[in-house]
Amino acid sequence: MIVMDLKQAIVVRTDLGMGKGKIAAQASHASVEVLGKADSKVVEEWKQQGMKKIVLKVGDKRELLELFQKMKKIFPAALIKDAGLTQIAPGEPTCIAVGPAEEIELDKFLGDLKLL
Amino acid sequence: MIVMDLKQAIVVRTDLGMGKGKIAAQASHASVEVLGKADSKVVEEWKQQGMKKIVLKVGDKRELLELFQKMKKIFPAALIKDAGLTQIAPGEPTCIAVGPAEEIELDKFLGDLKLL
Repeated sequence: MIVMDLKQAIVVRTDLGMGKGKIAAQASHASVEVLGKADSKVVEEWKQQGMKKIVLKVGDKRELLELFQKMKKIFPAALIKDAGLTQIAPGEPTCIAVGPAEEIELDKFLGDLKLL
Repeated sequence: MIVMDLKQAIVVRTDLGMGKGKIAAQASHASVEVLGKADSKVVEEWKQQGMKKIVLKVGDKRELLELFQKMKKIFPAALIKDAGLTQIAPGEPTCIAVGPAEEIELDKFLGDLKLL
């Protein structure tokens, strides 16, 4: 068995003016949600490897949704919409999580995005 | 069966000068890690309820570690230490996650902490 370097990517919108705590909550939501869509063996291996994770940013809703549409065809992916209890309108997409997936493959699609 | 309101709390140190992306990554790490310590039925129920989550802050390492010691006796709890690849010294504790657990019970212990 060839062991791959696995990574999860979280991509957050910067145009919503979310504070640090709000971003942390939305990102955590995404990080957990996507695990239900991933292969459980890959998830286990990713946990064993220390749950490598990267947090990236996009500037608006269109960018986020386009990225999500593209990613979900290839990788396990989850789109998070805000419950609207605080700060943001209900149903507003805030972030996505992609993977765990092979780091080299993820980077092909996400390598141009900037770190949050 | 009485359905409880379930919540997960994430508590982050503010004295490390972590940026938004770093905080999001550490919080996500904590949020996933603690699920392995929780009862799987409670985790499922929490997911069904929409994964309610709160992100709080403490001012230093001592506060975080004391809180962790207290919490882990009562609730599922995970302490996250940084891998030290970026920004922070390796092994430095950055945050904890507690629960999912009954919201009323969590609030008894964490209700005095401020939102991040």
